[in-house]
Amino acid sequence: MAILMPKPDEAILARREAVVEALRAIVPGEGTVSAPAAMRVFETDGLTAYRQLPLAVVLPETVAEVAAVLRYCHQENIPVVPRGSGTSLSGGALPLADGVLLVMSKFSRILEIDFDNRCAVVQPGVTNLGITRAVEHQRFYYAPDPSSQIACSIGGNVAENSGGVHCLKYGLTANNVLGVEFVTMAGEVIRLGGKHLDAEGYDLLGLLTGSEGLLGVVTEVTVRILQSPETARAVLIGFPTSEAAGACVAAIIAKGIIPAGMEMMDRPAILAAEDFVHAGYPRDVEALLIVELDGPQAEVDFLLSEVEAIALAHGATECRISRSEEERALFWAGRKAAFPAVGRISADYLCMDGTIPRKELPRVLSGMKALSEKHRLGVANVFHAGDGNLHPLILYDAARDDEFERAEAFGADILRLCVEVGGVLTGEHGVGIEKRDLMTEVFSEDDLRHQQRVKCAFDEKHLLNPGKVFPVLHRCAELGRLQVHKGALPFPELPRF
Amino acid sequence: MAILMPKPDEAILARREAVVEALRAIVPGEGTVSAPAAMRVFETDGLTAYRQLPLAVVLPETVAEVAAVLRYCHQENIPVVPRGSGTSLSGGALPLADGVLLVMSKFSRILEIDFDNRCAVVQPGVTNLGITRAVEHQRFYYAPDPSSQIACSIGGNVAENSGGVHCLKYGLTANNVLGVEFVTMAGEVIRLGGKHLDAEGYDLLGLLTGSEGLLGVVTEVTVRILQSPETARAVLIGFPTSEAAGACVAAIIAKGIIPAGMEMMDRPAILAAEDFVHAGYPRDVEALLIVELDGPQAEVDFLLSEVEAIALAHGATECRISRSEEERALFWAGRKAAFPAVGRISADYLCMDGTIPRKELPRVLSGMKALSEKHRLGVANVFHAGDGNLHPLILYDAARDDEFERAEAFGADILRLCVEVGGVLTGEHGVGIEKRDLMTEVFSEDDLRHQQRVKCAFDEKHLLNPGKVFPVLHRCAELGRLQVHKGALPFPELPRF
Repeated sequence: MAILMPKPDEAILARREAVVEALRAIVPGEGTVSAPAAMRVFETDGLTAYRQLPLAVVLPETVAEVAAVLRYCHQENIPVVPRGSGTSLSGGALPLADGVLLVMSKFSRILEIDFDNRCAVVQPGVTNLGITRAVEHQRFYYAPDPSSQIACSIGGNVAENSGGVHCLKYGLTANNVLGVEFVTMAGEVIRLGGKHLDAEGYDLLGLLTGSEGLLGVVTEVTVRILQSPETARAVLIGFPTSEAAGACVAAIIAKGIIPAGMEMMDRPAILAAEDFVHAGYPRDVEALLIVELDGPQAEVDFLLSEVEAIALAHGATECRISRSEEERALFWAGRKAAFPAVGRISADYLCMDGTIPRKELPRVLSGMKALSEKHRLGVANVFHAGDGNLHPLILYDAARDDEFERAEAFGADILRLCVEVGGVLTGEHGVGIEKRDLMTEVFSEDDLRHQQRVKCAFDEKHLLNPGKVFPVLHRCAELGRLQVHKGALPFPELPRF
Repeated sequence: MAILMPKPDEAILARREAVVEALRAIVPGEGTVSAPAAMRVFETDGLTAYRQLPLAVVLPETVAEVAAVLRYCHQENIPVVPRGSGTSLSGGALPLADGVLLVMSKFSRILEIDFDNRCAVVQPGVTNLGITRAVEHQRFYYAPDPSSQIACSIGGNVAENSGGVHCLKYGLTANNVLGVEFVTMAGEVIRLGGKHLDAEGYDLLGLLTGSEGLLGVVTEVTVRILQSPETARAVLIGFPTSEAAGACVAAIIAKGIIPAGMEMMDRPAILAAEDFVHAGYPRDVEALLIVELDGPQAEVDFLLSEVEAIALAHGATECRISRSEEERALFWAGRKAAFPAVGRISADYLCMDGTIPRKELPRVLSGMKALSEKHRLGVANVFHAGDGNLHPLILYDAARDDEFERAEAFGADILRLCVEVGGVLTGEHGVGIEKRDLMTEVFSEDDLRHQQRVKCAFDEKHLLNPGKVFPVLHRCAELGRLQVHKGALPFPELPRF
């Protein structure tokens, strides 16, 4: 394992039975789990290369129970790892040996649907797709759509600021959450936002969204719901080179068109998907774009003709518009199955998640080819092209010599390349443990200290999800004293008084 | 004056000459201003009822100078108030008698225009409209459009999270800013965001946006620019009652249509605007909607017909679609001149800024009528109806007995009413000093303490813009100790161990 987690506190491990008993007094019966066999199901999240049994698991059912568990752990200095459905791809919900795993799956009720204000109030354990299911009878839906949407919870979506294919037009989770209730590590219940536009005070709602379980435990979420578009049609566009596809993406955006989704796949991904799903993808192209447009019929027809014209002007060799809802679904079926499809052609793969300024696509793609040769491993590329969010799948076989280590090194090099062209380490999967040690590639020491000061404002004892996101944990008192930093800034010495 | 500012520190006032000398060593020549006559121009912002001369004014030109000024004031415990163009409507830039006013107007350069990535990098003193002017030759523009857009600076827009008529479709400043560079009170230079989608780490960019100059001084801003829509057309819709207009707004939104702008005016506002601008508004209606649709021609035509049908179904007595760009501009001219127009019919007015869930519009409007009688003062209403953002203009005459006090009490009652129906104190003007003492209507003590802990993470000594936003300033050390709060939470006593 390449990532070092904090060494478990022996004193806590020794008190395990007392801790379990205390937790059971707060969350009785099957709500507190301590048998290793029963905890096994929680030992990993979607980043399955890392596994760890927790000290104990609690599954509270009320906000009062959540607050009491946190208050107890705060008082006893026991770390807590919050968990939604456990689909995170960056290890954010990986348990700690000396920590309580706080599982929010029993918070599964839809509390209110308010069509007039176009929002829904739900508990954090409700699945992403569950929200859409609850409102679709009125032709409404919840827009962000991670691939895991059948299983992933809205609370987890808030923690990771999850994205999805349709985020190009409709935004990430942060753009679709109107309010949350959360509990701090000290057990305070705080409400942020609501059913209205922007509010006074600091934007703690934005801060909490994407905080990866380090600032608080979400106990209620108010989300915006949208009316389903009148029409949605997709177009498949094939190109002889990835560069041409990248230029076409830039031209569509520059024209002022914001497709509902704009996805790109390279040749290895196209072939893997086509062999698996038989979506009718062309086999003789180097890059494939799927562009979806939605809205009123008249708008969609107009924009489709514009997209087609731009594609042909950029050398597209194939351009096929879906003629029915079934055909549209088929176009997407290949893309949505791309990850398992790649799983069929490679024993194992690592899914990366870099984001770059859109116009750097060609440069990063050719850089990735060079890295593939350097590390002697194949790579298949699936992108949210419109967002500049890349998902390179690094192909390796864990059973063979040092391939896992090489795959990790290849992944780190790809992310460094993203940062080099002005991009960042993640678009929607989060840092978790996976990218934790790469944070210094993006942030200066000043930046990281500043982020941790904010962490201290919420969780002074560093008990919530420690070991995730930050490569080094400074003690809060230490950060407070760092008021003057020598030599870090480009300004002259101050005159003396 | 109803608002109490912190008592100036006599020790700082006594050292005024030494402070000015030290500032002059950092920002030489005319960059440091200390003559009262020369400082007079900075004594107020857009909330002109409050005036105060600062200790001194500095106008730095480089990031190094900003950092050095802040570092010096941090070391010497001197408060600092940052100021952009001074158009704030909530008193956020009101100077402090013992504080340095840090004026960012010399940061007026456009640093980079990147059409491929659809963004511009500018200094904070560039005006809002200045960004559009710099990119419009390529048919691009910057979307948020406060009424003060000719004068207000983008740095000030970031500080206040400014809105405008087009925010319904295109979002507030927070939704259009991609990155900032800012300097902390301790003089650290921090960069957030960039030209890419979402990034790892806490969303400090969102936190800084709308922080009203309490967290840092912005020295560079990267904004998203949009391609100008192919067409924009507006429709004027008159209603016999405000309730009918409110219901029409809700129906348009519920239909899934997001107009570029959807503004409402009540009868007093309509008549004042029409007398002033002669925009051709109907005089025989109780409420007027201006709905603008933009996008491709085909889409706009389609949506206009939908809006018209909804309006007629809701009892509209007049429905006029603009037939030319001139007519569209005329429709807006009345709305944009509504504030000065009201200034012609009333000696003075107070502009409020509450936001409510859209469907509560009728309830709030009738509540406002009752309050108008209670306080014996007239009110004219101009709304960003689509956002639920109200701008009631309370009409009074400062020269007459207790009218200013009654106007302030009326305003506070309106904001309390907004909060009562699930809304908030501000949509786009900020809290500043104007709404500071109403913060406890919205936030619990736990909430406010939590906000201040975040403030402490950025500015431990409370030197940046103190006295604004928070009704009470807790010392940071005190907040740190408040880890267990008794009785505030609805959970049972913990078992003892």
